Amino acid sequence: MKPVRVSRRGETSPASPIRKLVPLAVDAGRRGRKVHYLNIGQPDLPTPQPMWDTIIEGAPKVLAYSPSDGLPELKKAIADYYQRLEIPISEDQLIVTTGGSEAIVLAVGSVTDPGDEVLIPEPFYANYNGFSHLLGVKVMPIPTLPEDGYHLPPRQVWEERLSARTRAILICNPGNPTGTVYRPEEIEEVLAFAAEWGLFVIADEVYREFCFDGETHRSVTHYPEYADRVILIDSISKRFSACGARIGSVSTQNSDVLESCLHFAQARLSPPTLGQLMAVEAFGFEPSYYEDLAREYLARRDAVMDELSKMEGVLCEVPKGAFYAMAKLPVDDAEKFASWMLTDFEYEGETTFVAPGEGFYATPGAGTQEVRIAYVFEAPVMRRAMEVLGRGLQAYQKLGGAG
Amino acid sequence: MKPVRVSRRGETSPASPIRKLVPLAVDAGRRGRKVHYLNIGQPDLPTPQPMWDTIIEGAPKVLAYSPSDGLPELKKAIADYYQRLEIPISEDQLIVTTGGSEAIVLAVGSVTDPGDEVLIPEPFYANYNGFSHLLGVKVMPIPTLPEDGYHLPPRQVWEERLSARTRAILICNPGNPTGTVYRPEEIEEVLAFAAEWGLFVIADEVYREFCFDGETHRSVTHYPEYADRVILIDSISKRFSACGARIGSVSTQNSDVLESCLHFAQARLSPPTLGQLMAVEAFGFEPSYYEDLAREYLARRDAVMDELSKMEGVLCEVPKGAFYAMAKLPVDDAEKFASWMLTDFEYEGETTFVAPGEGFYATPGAGTQEVRIAYVFEAPVMRRAMEVLGRGLQAYQKLGGAG
Repeated sequence: MKPVRVSRRGETSPASPIRKLVPLAVDAGRRGRKVHYLNIGQPDLPTPQPMWDTIIEGAPKVLAYSPSDGLPELKKAIADYYQRLEIPISEDQLIVTTGGSEAIVLAVGSVTDPGDEVLIPEPFYANYNGFSHLLGVKVMPIPTLPEDGYHLPPRQVWEERLSARTRAILICNPGNPTGTVYRPEEIEEVLAFAAEWGLFVIADEVYREFCFDGETHRSVTHYPEYADRVILIDSISKRFSACGARIGSVSTQNSDVLESCLHFAQARLSPPTLGQLMAVEAFGFEPSYYEDLAREYLARRDAVMDELSKMEGVLCEVPKGAFYAMAKLPVDDAEKFASWMLTDFEYEGETTFVAPGEGFYATPGAGTQEVRIAYVFEAPVMRRAMEVLGRGLQAYQKLGGAG
Repeated sequence: MKPVRVSRRGETSPASPIRKLVPLAVDAGRRGRKVHYLNIGQPDLPTPQPMWDTIIEGAPKVLAYSPSDGLPELKKAIADYYQRLEIPISEDQLIVTTGGSEAIVLAVGSVTDPGDEVLIPEPFYANYNGFSHLLGVKVMPIPTLPEDGYHLPPRQVWEERLSARTRAILICNPGNPTGTVYRPEEIEEVLAFAAEWGLFVIADEVYREFCFDGETHRSVTHYPEYADRVILIDSISKRFSACGARIGSVSTQNSDVLESCLHFAQARLSPPTLGQLMAVEAFGFEPSYYEDLAREYLARRDAVMDELSKMEGVLCEVPKGAFYAMAKLPVDDAEKFASWMLTDFEYEGETTFVAPGEGFYATPGAGTQEVRIAYVFEAPVMRRAMEVLGRGLQAYQKLGGAG
C-alpha cells in the first residue's frame, strides 16, 4: 500500500485563535469553574422574539432548499434595509450566504486565483487567514499600530506590499478585532489606491451599527465612482444576535463578480432556510432597534475600558466601534497567559477566557503580547470578568510571566 | 483608474445544470403554467413532525454559534446511527458541516492543493465540479456508460487517467445522477486501486438508505485495512426531507485529515444551529422510518420507469438506488429540449422541468442527449409529470429536434 498524506494547505491550515483554546475552557468548566467567554463574539442578547415567532408560527411543512441566491423576500428585505442606509445595492445585486463567512469565500474566490495575494490591514479577523488558505491565496498584511488606534498607515506602506499578484484589499469596518472605525478620508484613500493599482475592495461591514462617541460609519459603497470594484460583506449574526442562524450576504454592482459568486453559490445549493425566514423579520425592525443596540454595547465598552484603565501596564485605545477591544498586556506571551488563565487560575471560582492576539496577525511574531476581548455580556458581567482578568494578570506577573 | 477583472476560476465557474434553467421555470410559472420540478432533488415529503417539535418547543433564547465541529449531542447521535449500520466512525471522528456540500469542500480541500487532480466516475453530481473549481482542483472524469448501468469501468481505464497530481477518488454511492448502486467488488476495486497509487477515497453516501430490488449498500468504511484513506460524506437533506436545514458531516479515521477539516471548519465558525437541533431528533428515528422511506421511493421509481418504457427511443437502465434516473432522449440537444419544455411547451397547462445531462459530465460533448429526472414526488404526480414529458418529446420531434 502506498500511504496517503494530507494536503499542504490542510497541513498548514491555522487553528482559529478564537476557538483553539476552547477545550481548555471546557475542561475548566468541568472542574467547576465559571468561565467568562470573552474569546468569541457571541452576544448574550436574546434573539428578538419576532424572529422566533415567524418560524414557530409559520414553519413550512417541508424544510426545502431556497434559491441559491436566497429567498426573494429576504433579498428584498436586505435591499430595503440598504436603501434606508443609502447603500446603493438592489435586490438583484446581492446573494444571501451562509453567514458572513461564506460571503468572504465567494468574494475572495471570485477575485483571486491560487497564488494571488490580498492586502489586509492587520490585526485582522483571524478567519480571513483560514479562508485564504483554503483558496490558495496569500494574505499580505498591512501593519497598523495599537498606538495609532489601529488606523491605516500611509500609502507608502501599502505600496511596499504590492506585487504583480495583488488582486484585492480586504478591510473590516468597524474593525474586528480592533474596534477601529475608519475615517471617511481613510476609506477614500483605500478606494483611490485600489483604483490606481487595479484592485478590488472587499469590505466587511457587519458591525456598521456598532459605532460610539458620535462616530458615523462610512461605507465603501458610498462612492459611485468606485462601484465596479467594491464588494460588500454582511451578516445578521451580531446585529440581530443570531450567530447560529448562519445568514449573511455578498453584494456588488460588478455583474461579473456577482455572476461568479452566484455560480459558486449554486454549487452549495442554498443558505439555511430557517435562518432566512428569521432574517426577513429582522430586517423590518425600526431604527430604534439599532439605537438601543448601540447604547447597550456602549455601556459594555465603557465598563471594559474603565476596568482596563485600572490595570497597570495594559495598553488599550478606546475602541470606537464593533464590540471588541485589542489590549496589549504586560506579559511575555499572551497565548501562554490566556491558556494559564484557563488551566491554572481562578478567582473566587471564576476565570476569564480571552483570545490570544497572535492569530489575528500574519506577520510572524506580531501580536504576541495582545489579546482580543469581546464585550458581549451586560456591563456588570463585563466588569466582573475584567476584574477576574486583572487578578489573573497580577498573579501571573508574580509567577514571573511579565513581559 | 485601472480596471478590475473577475478571477479565472470565477470567470470559468460552471453554472449548476440543476439550477441554470430555474429562471425559465419561474417565468413559465408566471405565465400560469404548472411546472413539475424534476430538475432538483427536493422531495415533497413533509419534514417529520418531531423535528419541528424539537425547535418549536425547545427554541433557545439566544440563537448562538455551536462548536465548529457541531453540537456534541448531534455528533453523538450521528455516531450512534453509524454504529447501527456497522460504520466504524466514532463521535470524535466526525465534523458536522453545512450540508453535504460543505463536507465535500472540507474533504477535497484537505487532500488536494491547487493544481492537483481528483478522479470522479462520470456522470457525476454536478456540484463536485463547482467545488473543485473554487479550490483550484481539476476533475479527471472516469467514463461510465448508460448501457452498463453506469457501473465502473475496468482498471485500465482508471490507470489512463492517473497523473503525478492525482490525489483522490470521489465516488457517490448510491449514485447521483445515475441511481447506480455499486457492487461490493466495485468498492473493493476502488479501494485497492487507491491503495496501490496512494490516493484518498472520498465517498458520498447520502443516499445509502435509498436502495431497491434487494440491493444492499456497501460502504467504503466497511474495510478496516483502508480506513486511513477513506473519507465519508453525509447529509440529512434527503434522508429526512430537510434540504433547507443544511446539515451534513465529514468523517474519517485519518486524524491528520480530520484536523485539517476542523481547522477549515473553524474558519467558518459553525454549521446552522436550528438544523442541528432538528437532526439530533431525526437520528433517533426507528429502522422502520427508513424502510417506509425506501418503499415510498420505490413506488416513485416504478412509476417513472413504467412511463419511460412507453416512450419511443428513450434509453434508461432501471436505477437501483438514490432517487434519480439518467435518461437518454431521442433529441439532438437535451439542454435545448429542456429549455424548450419551459419556454414553448405545455400539455393541458402543464410542463416538466428536467436537468440537462451535459453538466453532469466533465468530458466535452458527453451527455448531450441525457437528462436527469429526480423522482421526488408521489407516484401519481410522477406519472403525470412523465406523461407531460412524453407529450413534450413527441411535439419536439415533430418540430425536427430529434437526435
